[in-house]
Amino acid sequence: MQTFNTINDIQNWCRDQKRQGKSIGLVPTMGYLHAGHLALAAEARSRCDIVVVSIFVNPIQFGVGEDFEDYPRDLRRDSNLLEQAGVDALFAPSVREMYPVGYGSYVEVTGEITEKLSRPGHFRGVTTVVSKLFNICLPDLAFFGQKDAQQAMVIEKMVKELNFPLQIIRVPIIREADGLAMSSRNVYLNPDQRSQALVLNQSLQKAREAIMAGERDTDRVRNLLQATIGTSPEANVDYAEIYDATTLADVKEIDGSVLIALAVRFGTTRLIDNLIVEVQ
Amino acid sequence: MQTFNTINDIQNWCRDQKRQGKSIGLVPTMGYLHAGHLALAAEARSRCDIVVVSIFVNPIQFGVGEDFEDYPRDLRRDSNLLEQAGVDALFAPSVREMYPVGYGSYVEVTGEITEKLSRPGHFRGVTTVVSKLFNICLPDLAFFGQKDAQQAMVIEKMVKELNFPLQIIRVPIIREADGLAMSSRNVYLNPDQRSQALVLNQSLQKAREAIMAGERDTDRVRNLLQATIGTSPEANVDYAEIYDATTLADVKEIDGSVLIALAVRFGTTRLIDNLIVEVQ
Repeated sequence: MQTFNTINDIQNWCRDQKRQGKSIGLVPTMGYLHAGHLALAAEARSRCDIVVVSIFVNPIQFGVGEDFEDYPRDLRRDSNLLEQAGVDALFAPSVREMYPVGYGSYVEVTGEITEKLSRPGHFRGVTTVVSKLFNICLPDLAFFGQKDAQQAMVIEKMVKELNFPLQIIRVPIIREADGLAMSSRNVYLNPDQRSQALVLNQSLQKAREAIMAGERDTDRVRNLLQATIGTSPEANVDYAEIYDATTLADVKEIDGSVLIALAVRFGTTRLIDNLIVEVQ
Repeated sequence: MQTFNTINDIQNWCRDQKRQGKSIGLVPTMGYLHAGHLALAAEARSRCDIVVVSIFVNPIQFGVGEDFEDYPRDLRRDSNLLEQAGVDALFAPSVREMYPVGYGSYVEVTGEITEKLSRPGHFRGVTTVVSKLFNICLPDLAFFGQKDAQQAMVIEKMVKELNFPLQIIRVPIIREADGLAMSSRNVYLNPDQRSQALVLNQSLQKAREAIMAGERDTDRVRNLLQATIGTSPEANVDYAEIYDATTLADVKEIDGSVLIALAVRFGTTRLIDNLIVEVQ
């Protein structure tokens, strides 16, 4: 595996690969890799000639008071994991390499899809860095986890509307044996919070069962989510919502494909999880 | 010359050209071509294996009350001119092809470089459509006229900061025999306005002469521009400014490379012109 720290070097390398007719798969990450990231890399490995993984904790998608400084980092460990996963190239730039002094160019997806659930400006940071990574690494396929479902939706909309010459592949959520969705932020949880955090997946499963049993009213499903999460003493619900799975539009009566999306805080740690449920 | 109307068709065609190892030059235009556009196409022809010209009057860069509806259009004439110029592909999409219902993705260059001289939002329209055209046509080189100097600067900044895998080539202003900068909007001028419009180039030349003779004070150069333009009874100055030619920062004492930029209205017709002057 080759490691690149400068845009110029990896962009030239990727251009060379393309000239040789090779397909490129890109897995953008913020590092501190877990099995979820490795599932993305494995999917890329199975579908592309060349697999590039980027590791970059992107400051412009964090808000004031969020955990940019504290976000866990371990590049040496990550690098070993990627080497073992058969990744061809690791791109790990510095903040100054990605955002030089005077930086001012941004990519933004506007509307309901980015205004809901998230802090204003968060997705502008995401779509900007992902656009940069697309232009730098020239992927044919780019792999994103279903765990951040809204992020995947926003990036798919951006790719379609700005006509990026590539395809987004969504990879399912990878969970611990007990059902907790894998996350780099899980390391923040103390043992007690770690066991309470199971309410995220449990509430999603209960909501699914209710819908499968015929429940179509989103208010009642929302109440069920809240009640289940409420059994955990430390859980603070940031959101527990049911939206159209394609547009993130509000849904009153469940019909077609809906996204059940959660964000829950345990102390200062914010975890997300989601489930797509389809009904006829 | 092949003509394409859909994004999908030209993107696939351009991808094929790249796979065959050919370099692509892109000339983005709004059509109603004149010798300035043809100079861009000729420059592209001399430097690239494949030359693509786009013709698209981009609604999102026009403000309310501007001339989007009235902007001159003649696709048949343009197509013949491009055929004669040895262009390989013309891309002429509809507005709905470029901006389908629900469209919401934008590219923006923020800061002094876009806030000066132009209506808020204008350059967001320009950088969005140009990003789309880059992603669609996959150019190695893209050609822009020096006539809209600020536009060229903004696009260069965007390409650098968003890491587009291509290079911008600026092509000098092409003028009529009497010095008027070529513009699709010149057709709006009545004969009297047409002759008065010479004050743009004349004032730029006078300013250059003054600077070459030792003038370093931008206020005095600005006054000279205003006085010269003021000799035309119908001219309304939108701006007549002197800025740093790289950053568009304000300049008090002329030093290094400065951009002298004009926008002047004759009736409802707004013309622009500019000159870069270098001093030691």
